[in-house]
Amino acid sequence: MFVYVRPVRFEDVDAANIVFFSRFLNYCHEAMEALLEPLVGGYAGLVVGRKIGLPAVHVDADFVSPLRFGDVARVNVTVERIGNSSTTFRYDFSQARDGRPVATIRHVVVLSDLVALRSVPIPADVRAVLESHLAGANVS
Amino acid sequence: MFVYVRPVRFEDVDAANIVFFSRFLNYCHEAMEALLEPLVGGYAGLVVGRKIGLPAVHVDADFVSPLRFGDVARVNVTVERIGNSSTTFRYDFSQARDGRPVATIRHVVVLSDLVALRSVPIPADVRAVLESHLAGANVS
Amino acid sequence: MFVYVRPVRFEDVDAANIVFFSRFLNYCHEAMEALLEPLVGGYAGLVVGRKIGLPAVHVDADFVSPLRFGDVARVNVTVERIGNSSTTFRYDFSQARDGRPVATIRHVVVLSDLVALRSVPIPADVRAVLESHLAGANVS
Amino acid sequence: MFVYVRPVRFEDVDAANIVFFSRFLNYCHEAMEALLEPLVGGYAGLVVGRKIGLPAVHVDADFVSPLRFGDVARVNVTVERIGNSSTTFRYDFSQARDGRPVATIRHVVVLSDLVALRSVPIPADVRAVLESHLAGANVS
Repeated sequence: MFVYVRPVRFEDVDAANIVFFSRFLNYCHEAMEALLEPLVGGYAGLVVGRKIGLPAVHVDADFVSPLRFGDVARVNVTVERIGNSSTTFRYDFSQARDGRPVATIRHVVVLSDLVALRSVPIPADVRAVLESHLAGANVS
Repeated sequence: MFVYVRPVRFEDVDAANIVFFSRFLNYCHEAMEALLEPLVGGYAGLVVGRKIGLPAVHVDADFVSPLRFGDVARVNVTVERIGNSSTTFRYDFSQARDGRPVATIRHVVVLSDLVALRSVPIPADVRAVLESHLAGANVS
Repeated sequence: MFVYVRPVRFEDVDAANIVFFSRFLNYCHEAMEALLEPLVGGYAGLVVGRKIGLPAVHVDADFVSPLRFGDVARVNVTVERIGNSSTTFRYDFSQARDGRPVATIRHVVVLSDLVALRSVPIPADVRAVLESHLAGANVS
Repeated sequence: MFVYVRPVRFEDVDAANIVFFSRFLNYCHEAMEALLEPLVGGYAGLVVGRKIGLPAVHVDADFVSPLRFGDVARVNVTVERIGNSSTTFRYDFSQARDGRPVATIRHVVVLSDLVALRSVPIPADVRAVLESHLAGANVS
């Protein structure tokens, strides 16, 4: 499991004064980028240097309680599935302060050649990082 | 059915040069606001004047092909379900130019008192607008 | 003069419940894109087709009164100066409802080859559109 | 002087593949929030707890060279002026990697009661934080 801690920013809320629902996907993407940081050059190296991206093919999200400015989200990220070229991330959002559940989001991406926008097999170094966060993975 | 036409904006894309996945939810919300425009004061009147909002409790999205700057999205919005206080919108995204499918997004909201953040029964005027876009609704 | 009318959107505000200051530049850019719509293919055609962009080299902004969700901004756009490769836009923001002044923003851009990121002379068709909105221009 | 280090994020760029100009103001605001972190409860405490905000009344920005995805911005923040209720921040952006100048932004804010949207004298604790970053301030 990978933990990403994200304070809500001043401009993340909407006119209902809660974090706008689309922003949760921004938080997920940030968490995914942070998880991939161990790659040489990080996520940016993958995208800019190797022209490989992880466009989403599916997202599902359940929102349980709102986030507001002043809150800090704790996002527990696990990798639920690793296929040939696709992988599934799961993000469990809670309030950092007291653990109150906020949202659960599933995010399926396909490793893609960004020039051809065609799927590619998951490169070995990316696979290794993903495997280290596989749900139920044991470190023994 | 309600149709919302949305040109991709210059800043909607990401470093992979395609519309960032979270932006699709912005487009959905815009389409929902446009659909609710017939309310007195529109969606803003509901939120600001009556302190009633439609926070999301669930979203699921399937992304089929990307949108780029220069593309125009056609979003067909239907109301799939109207409950006591919740309702489900479905957004079918395609390329306006040639009808190529882009994405399908389902969005469940709960009509909520924004002060107490508690669900409220769907007001009659909102229900009437929703019913006019109910999937399979006949105008006869 | 060119007029761009822009309702504030639900997610344009911040935790102080007013339009976040950076969003004003988004509104300016939208207004500039709308002004350039008469080009063949519009602004997107310029950027995507001809690889010419208008990156900002200078911005100054005075904020007089806030915008809130439910407000509609009226943006009067004039072209203040047309040089060899740079041009200056001026955006006067007011409340559409009553004309109350909101902000004045000046925005200097340099027509640039987006591949080399080097300035280019303003193409004739772009110059013609700019000239039609030159401050003090007379239509007689 | 206060230093804020900000990697460009995947979704910060536009269709010209450089950080969209409005985003620079987001970075400025983040840097200002980080600078105010020593306040009890941080910037969020000021806004949410004490209902005091720092809306912008003026911004001017000079953009020298672009930021791209993969770049890291180093933002040197100084306080140029502290008045009765207004203060001026200056942000010098450069590439963290090699010090190449990117942009210089000046940002004048007025400490304001967010309920009445009226200016208030700068509270003593805020003033103390600002003074510690006053341009030319000596630590001796």
